Amino acid sequence: MRIEINRPLDMHLHLRDGAMLKLAAPHSAKDFAGAVVMPNLVPPVNSAEAMSAYRSRILDAAGTHAKNFAPLMTIFLQKQTPEELLAFKNTPGFFAMKLYPAGATTNSDGGVRDFGEAEPTLRAMEELGIPLLVHGESNGFVMDRETEFLPVYRDLAVRFPELKICMEHISTAAALPLLDEFENLFATVTLHHLLFTLDDLAGGLLAPHLFCKPIVKRPEDREALRAAVFGGNDKIMFGSDSAPHPVSQKESAAAPGGIYSAPVLLPALTELFARNGALEKLNGFLGGNARKIYGLPETTQKIALEDTPQSVPARYCAEDGETCVVPMLAGKEIAWSVCE
Amino acid sequence: MRIEINRPLDMHLHLRDGAMLKLAAPHSAKDFAGAVVMPNLVPPVNSAEAMSAYRSRILDAAGTHAKNFAPLMTIFLQKQTPEELLAFKNTPGFFAMKLYPAGATTNSDGGVRDFGEAEPTLRAMEELGIPLLVHGESNGFVMDRETEFLPVYRDLAVRFPELKICMEHISTAAALPLLDEFENLFATVTLHHLLFTLDDLAGGLLAPHLFCKPIVKRPEDREALRAAVFGGNDKIMFGSDSAPHPVSQKESAAAPGGIYSAPVLLPALTELFARNGALEKLNGFLGGNARKIYGLPETTQKIALEDTPQSVPARYCAEDGETCVVPMLAGKEIAWSVCE
Repeated sequence: MRIEINRPLDMHLHLRDGAMLKLAAPHSAKDFAGAVVMPNLVPPVNSAEAMSAYRSRILDAAGTHAKNFAPLMTIFLQKQTPEELLAFKNTPGFFAMKLYPAGATTNSDGGVRDFGEAEPTLRAMEELGIPLLVHGESNGFVMDRETEFLPVYRDLAVRFPELKICMEHISTAAALPLLDEFENLFATVTLHHLLFTLDDLAGGLLAPHLFCKPIVKRPEDREALRAAVFGGNDKIMFGSDSAPHPVSQKESAAAPGGIYSAPVLLPALTELFARNGALEKLNGFLGGNARKIYGLPETTQKIALEDTPQSVPARYCAEDGETCVVPMLAGKEIAWSVCE
Repeated sequence: MRIEINRPLDMHLHLRDGAMLKLAAPHSAKDFAGAVVMPNLVPPVNSAEAMSAYRSRILDAAGTHAKNFAPLMTIFLQKQTPEELLAFKNTPGFFAMKLYPAGATTNSDGGVRDFGEAEPTLRAMEELGIPLLVHGESNGFVMDRETEFLPVYRDLAVRFPELKICMEHISTAAALPLLDEFENLFATVTLHHLLFTLDDLAGGLLAPHLFCKPIVKRPEDREALRAAVFGGNDKIMFGSDSAPHPVSQKESAAAPGGIYSAPVLLPALTELFARNGALEKLNGFLGGNARKIYGLPETTQKIALEDTPQSVPARYCAEDGETCVVPMLAGKEIAWSVCE
């Protein structure tokens, strides 16, 4: 069997910098029309200059794939002024502001500690039509963080009715009803939250390469996300949250959160949707919904996949030979492949 | 400050074999009057001969500490006959039978799959006065496994009213009421379930050295266990479940469950009890309760501790120089020390 999909969008992606960027960028740029690039570098991407420079490094790292790949750049939300926001908006490649509660995930220490202080910035974003992407987790117990954060989403949705607010990488059943309740709330969902639960991370042997923030949740959460995505909920967009870390950090006494899914996304998503009789929903999830929600340009390019099995490599190493990363599903077989 | 406690008992301990046994045995034998030694070697300890040989290896590994240390040996419960059980009972060092549901933890594949089949063995144990120690976890979602297993404890307690049944390493608030409900149900509690929750394992960076079965649970579970232990519940005994694994396995893509707490148990327990104003409950938890419950001999030996801080080593390595293990609280400071 062979299918064709519109060249897709990844609405939540970590590309890192340096040797890791050179390794990761081609994996996404090869098959995707564009990707929303997260700003949590060290230091964070928090100025138009830093964003433009990062975008250039990304396109450079994408190499021959750069011509078909649009990095949709984000800036780390702090207390930016309306003038600064306008400057961002007028900078090529800018897409949205990303809000991290301080300390919620990798390199988020400079994030928002007090939502009251962010009010003028959010109000200006609303007026300028700049989307707000939110890492929605409290500082509570790890399994409860997203649920505890939902009142903040409700509050933001009510206070900023014209602001497009995206609940990034939702991982719980509890987050889904908000999509029906608030017109201006949207969501991204990762592949790994559709595939895995805490049982895969810690139910047998501990699997650090499946450790991420937000953490994979309960089976009933995964089922609810699957039902929403396979049912074609058009407020839900695919965002991989692919987030490479060196294997030396992931297989250590203190492993950072992040799953490197970029190399396997399209075949693994196709397999999952095919098994659940939801192939006709793939185009919407993989870019159609996002293009409508954000008014992004349509694409005429296609990507073809066929049901030829492939084995996922044990690891990918950068040209420096030292920076290696273990992809999601390493060593496993995927039933589909992208046609080259 | 200086305190003296009765030479304590560890009612649940993994000592492994080979180089790891040589490394681990002295850490427990140095300060403890005895320890209940788990039988989940490969192959499991499931005969009187294997048990006697293992006991000899343990005493040999304990070296100069062996004279003050009694290994309380267990045998892996399968479908043993009354004759076999009687032979176990007549073998020096035998203490109890250990029941693992198949696949519940490290090296438990040969465990019980059908409790109906174990009925004659359990009946004979009841008649012979042999205690039953149970790893009580279902095969369900990792956070629910102990709670899902509680009906099995209820059923066993009712069907075998004269059998002493110990719920090993309980980790949830839900398990505690069974101690009041059934006279013949007892429990061990580890230090790590009194100290940690899933937040410590996976709330920040992933900490494989805090990964164990049963997994550390929610804050309210830890609080309930603390309240029961610090309140002096005399049906609860200390069992460390200290379980060393080589650092090369723990810091890998697939880390086994087990926390190596043996080297830090007494000072860390003393610090925890002191901070919670529960020092007068330490003797009961650390052996007094167990001696009463199982009719074990009293001890006249004392161990002294003083509130002199110590740093926990980053790792311990066996004489072969290759087998290294990272202890719980590695690199951290403990406010108390055992007086040498």
